Amino acid sequence: MLAPSSLPSPIAMTESQNKKDLAYARTKISFDVKDMTNYLYGGSENVDQRRYIIDLIAKDPIFNKDDWGWLNHTDAVKRGIAMSTRLAEIKMEHDLNDMDFATMVEAVDDTLPILLHNGAFIPVITSQGTDEQIDKWITPAEKFQIIGCYAQTELGHGSNLARLETTATFVRDTDEWEINSTTFTAAKWWIGGLGALCTHAVVQARLFIDGKDYGAHVFVVPLRSLEDHRTFPGIEIGDIGPKAYNGFNKMDNGFARFTKYRIPRENMLMRFSKVSRDGVFTKPPHAKLSYGSMVLLRSFLIKQMALYLSRATTVATRYLTVRRQFNNPTSRNDADVNPDLETQVINYPMVQNRLFPMIAQAYALFAAGSVMMNMYINLMTGLSSGNIGDLAEVHAMSSALKSYCTTIGAAGTEECRKLMGGHGFSYFTGLAHLFASIVPSNTYEGDNYVLTQQMARYLLKEVKTARTNPDKVTPFSKYLLLPLNTQAFSRTTCAVAQPSDWLKPEIQLAAFEHRCARLAFELSDAVDAAGADPDSDKTWSDHNIECYRVSHAHAQYTMVLWFIQSIQEAHNPDADAERRAEPASVKVLERLSHLHALHTIQTNLADFVEDGYFSPAQCQSLRAQVKGLVASLADEVIGLVDAFDHPDFLLNSALGASDGNAYKRLWDKAQTEPLNKREVCDGYEEYIRPLLKKHGDVKL
Amino acid sequence: MLAPSSLPSPIAMTESQNKKDLAYARTKISFDVKDMTNYLYGGSENVDQRRYIIDLIAKDPIFNKDDWGWLNHTDAVKRGIAMSTRLAEIKMEHDLNDMDFATMVEAVDDTLPILLHNGAFIPVITSQGTDEQIDKWITPAEKFQIIGCYAQTELGHGSNLARLETTATFVRDTDEWEINSTTFTAAKWWIGGLGALCTHAVVQARLFIDGKDYGAHVFVVPLRSLEDHRTFPGIEIGDIGPKAYNGFNKMDNGFARFTKYRIPRENMLMRFSKVSRDGVFTKPPHAKLSYGSMVLLRSFLIKQMALYLSRATTVATRYLTVRRQFNNPTSRNDADVNPDLETQVINYPMVQNRLFPMIAQAYALFAAGSVMMNMYINLMTGLSSGNIGDLAEVHAMSSALKSYCTTIGAAGTEECRKLMGGHGFSYFTGLAHLFASIVPSNTYEGDNYVLTQQMARYLLKEVKTARTNPDKVTPFSKYLLLPLNTQAFSRTTCAVAQPSDWLKPEIQLAAFEHRCARLAFELSDAVDAAGADPDSDKTWSDHNIECYRVSHAHAQYTMVLWFIQSIQEAHNPDADAERRAEPASVKVLERLSHLHALHTIQTNLADFVEDGYFSPAQCQSLRAQVKGLVASLADEVIGLVDAFDHPDFLLNSALGASDGNAYKRLWDKAQTEPLNKREVCDGYEEYIRPLLKKHGDVKL
Repeated sequence: MLAPSSLPSPIAMTESQNKKDLAYARTKISFDVKDMTNYLYGGSENVDQRRYIIDLIAKDPIFNKDDWGWLNHTDAVKRGIAMSTRLAEIKMEHDLNDMDFATMVEAVDDTLPILLHNGAFIPVITSQGTDEQIDKWITPAEKFQIIGCYAQTELGHGSNLARLETTATFVRDTDEWEINSTTFTAAKWWIGGLGALCTHAVVQARLFIDGKDYGAHVFVVPLRSLEDHRTFPGIEIGDIGPKAYNGFNKMDNGFARFTKYRIPRENMLMRFSKVSRDGVFTKPPHAKLSYGSMVLLRSFLIKQMALYLSRATTVATRYLTVRRQFNNPTSRNDADVNPDLETQVINYPMVQNRLFPMIAQAYALFAAGSVMMNMYINLMTGLSSGNIGDLAEVHAMSSALKSYCTTIGAAGTEECRKLMGGHGFSYFTGLAHLFASIVPSNTYEGDNYVLTQQMARYLLKEVKTARTNPDKVTPFSKYLLLPLNTQAFSRTTCAVAQPSDWLKPEIQLAAFEHRCARLAFELSDAVDAAGADPDSDKTWSDHNIECYRVSHAHAQYTMVLWFIQSIQEAHNPDADAERRAEPASVKVLERLSHLHALHTIQTNLADFVEDGYFSPAQCQSLRAQVKGLVASLADEVIGLVDAFDHPDFLLNSALGASDGNAYKRLWDKAQTEPLNKREVCDGYEEYIRPLLKKHGDVKL
Repeated sequence: MLAPSSLPSPIAMTESQNKKDLAYARTKISFDVKDMTNYLYGGSENVDQRRYIIDLIAKDPIFNKDDWGWLNHTDAVKRGIAMSTRLAEIKMEHDLNDMDFATMVEAVDDTLPILLHNGAFIPVITSQGTDEQIDKWITPAEKFQIIGCYAQTELGHGSNLARLETTATFVRDTDEWEINSTTFTAAKWWIGGLGALCTHAVVQARLFIDGKDYGAHVFVVPLRSLEDHRTFPGIEIGDIGPKAYNGFNKMDNGFARFTKYRIPRENMLMRFSKVSRDGVFTKPPHAKLSYGSMVLLRSFLIKQMALYLSRATTVATRYLTVRRQFNNPTSRNDADVNPDLETQVINYPMVQNRLFPMIAQAYALFAAGSVMMNMYINLMTGLSSGNIGDLAEVHAMSSALKSYCTTIGAAGTEECRKLMGGHGFSYFTGLAHLFASIVPSNTYEGDNYVLTQQMARYLLKEVKTARTNPDKVTPFSKYLLLPLNTQAFSRTTCAVAQPSDWLKPEIQLAAFEHRCARLAFELSDAVDAAGADPDSDKTWSDHNIECYRVSHAHAQYTMVLWFIQSIQEAHNPDADAERRAEPASVKVLERLSHLHALHTIQTNLADFVEDGYFSPAQCQSLRAQVKGLVASLADEVIGLVDAFDHPDFLLNSALGASDGNAYKRLWDKAQTEPLNKREVCDGYEEYIRPLLKKHGDVKL
């Protein structure tokens, strides 16, 4: 080893090796990255537009992320407000549509006080307000002359709408509603945008007329004066304080208590339910019409998980390509050029077997997000012409997928962070911020465990349909026809005879279908045996564990199916051009799809073995197949994550930037720590010196 | 519903119901909580001492936690320094031993700059220094006249000690070492205490004499002047910045670069390796003697996980007992007193089946922590008399358990947070802070995946021993004798014939032993077939997935075994009094132990099914048994978590305090958010008003 003075600049050497490693990895990719990106985003126009929007945000200094690691909640909210108003301005300046706005939010990469204005306030009024109400509030809302939030959750109630404790009581004399937080736990809580920014809220409150409870309804409630932003008398508002993991740090999640607060009768949204001047209540034509917005939010979350998990795997894949540790001669793909260096961490099979299946999941999430969003659009088209036929299935599907996808999104992001070892615990990986943004999705918009009851209830009805009217079973539940022949079904075993059989999509799907069908029928039998009624809650909760199992099984089946179908479309010459991909891309996509399907099976192996569907030998060969598929992707993964097309501004990661210059960036980031501005730390004179000197000076 | 004015104070009502719910739950406990606490901590003296120490911390204002949620890293480090010096003073004032110091650190509940002084600096010098060196540095270190840290990890290297890039080159002329950070990635990184507080470090550096590399050795390096705390010339030091999830926020994890920095030859720790005045190097008698401190740290982490997971389950159990949502008539245990209220969330079987197994794990962790710590003490006693016989087994065991226990500790804490639903995402649960403190343990002190190779290597040697010299197999690997009769082993099936058989410890242990034995022999055969050599790394990494499986299987087996043994001791009249428990406690402990064993099997079911050891019917009956055990604990869990004896100061949780007053505390905490001091938020004039007024006033 040479003395340092005779070496070239150590910084330059490290930079250059890091960059070389990533550049060299890119030489081995077998497909065109740009083509893969187009496949993921549905064509180059979408890709270009996304890049354009992200650049718009990246070049605006208010969205700079350099000091985010040091902002406490109090300061972060002020920043969140500044970012919010700028976002509103850009939207108006560039006349951006909802999709572009969503991309701006993706680029901003934090939850801002203004998000529920476009995300809930406007949609709820638009879908549940009369034409006059829409005209009255949406016109100024679109010009941000008023800014709104959505106030449902209370201190004591989240999911159980029927037991909300905020009331709106009809005051006949003045033709008004009196809004009251009747109890301590009636305080609205967690409401994004409420704590500081918003002038208005749509408030869920139980409607009372002459002492009679008509259940939860939605009211437009002015909160703060448009002149000086002061809260109106009768309302007490505040911010609920910091969140776990510094998540939603810039969001002013707030609370509100109402005391005899009056609003005009017309502030109740009356497209469906109505209350007349003389206090006559009219019911809506269909109780579930408002499910549409829940389906939208859940479908959107699935798309979001694709973007999030793809970011996490991008960062981990790039860093682990430049990180080297130990020398393992058999597990490396750069031995030809770097025989003397340690092994790149990404070449260890253990690392590959943890990381690559998540890349495959991210690809599957892209496919699932597209299909789910299309199902939503078709549903809304149907609904607008009075057709509610698909509502139950789409609602169940969006629930099951929301639960499963947000679970793997959060868990996968944290797993990527851990894959990065010691440095993964630095804030500068960018992944901790990402996890903190994702993980609340596991408990909001329907807790991931509770939500699985929706799919289970749906499947139980479909089991009945299969038994009584098999032709009426809906497309994604067709597998429920399998167990109708009980004898044959119980004897069914997996058809894999040789290893390559695992790579047949029909064999993969058959395994998932068998599992779903078995679990659904077992649940149905158990529910029947117990005399439980999914709609009445009688002993229903005793079956919730099995609901969770069958719902996640169905979600996994759907994900596998949709990913396979998306690839079939990608090499179908008759498909839309934006959905197609070149043969070289398709070849790798097929491997990813196999890995996704087989790894999902392996992770849930007991479900496939405990009834004898897989033999012991098949279990062994499945594990070998997964290992083989993982190994076969070693040269492709850097291309697969590059194809996600996440610019450095978005990743905001010292370790995962596109040039691979990880150590240098980590060093540079550390230099920005304000503590490093002083040679002797704050607190020396006050604390350290007295301690050191307490027993006198020491000579060493 | 009444108008608010005619109601009693809503706050008082909520308070009272919350408190009533917890109080009522406590009436149903079947055992004496105090007795259970004594069992957990090994006698009432330990319990009292722990409480005494925690109170000592709780009453000192410097350790107040009220503003922690708002401290950014820069401010937090200053706080960490103040807390550190106070901790040192208390230690000296009360002349506390290591165990009491550990309890102080538990009570402080954050990672402080001073921790590595007692946790690594002193132990390393004590174990690796000569008597003169111990006298020179430990005497002032114990009086905090110098404060030290431990500098091993570098920007480019963590685990691979042999490739550290910091060098210590012998300078014969002046009888000194020249310390150099030879490359950019040689910078010491992540070193706790280095960034701001410490005056000294023990530095791992590669020792060079006359150009020859003697590998990594340990040197005492002065960093900062004892007069003014300025860094000495030739050293560049700084703080590495904020960490993921705000974890280790008060810790000054630092970096350091050395340039031709000179220290005397005597600053090399020379109990084992030595370098004489004329540069002659003498090897240590046994290369693995320094493993002792690794075993200690890992054993300590297991104890720590017991404390952490027990805290997380305490908070979740209490909050879910007072949280009510929906009304489910069949799943509630308070229907006798509260027929009109919604169901307590803890009464839902889905919630119970997620939460209760973690309470059982926490109990199993207490048992495992004790056994492991005793194994360490016995090992050190042996080592001090030159007996290194147990070193390999204890080292492997501590590695396997560290990996498994810190994995379930972190995952369990996050699962508890999620169990708390929406409010679980508030900082004020206390669980986010806890998770951020735990989760780095999954990647430090040996990455949890890499570390499993230690146990796998050990088991592979034991497999050879079993085959060649079966009498020599060590106690915890006796199961390796099972597969020696290949035919009989492959035909072995689980002996459960009726449901109650699952509750026989010998049947539970047989299942774990069978699984471990199968996985170990499969690994051994695969390694042999590939011609891999665990010591040479030839194709070794291809087997690391299987290493992980077998190591976690062994860890789970050990945990189950030790928990069973601990309960056997608890009702053994001949056992030490501190280890005994009353019959009522033992009865519940046995149920916990069953749940722990069977839930662990269920979570890893494929391993027990895929070779036919369990039949399909046994799988079904196992699941039923787990559900039954969970349900049987419904009335006990509040007592089981109370028995952990964590005072409110330690839990620092609005939702998990001992009085159950969750909503009121959450409300009160929210009021402390500094944003709430202003009626109109910061940023209104600057950002919000211009946006609202951009298109003129609106009349609504």
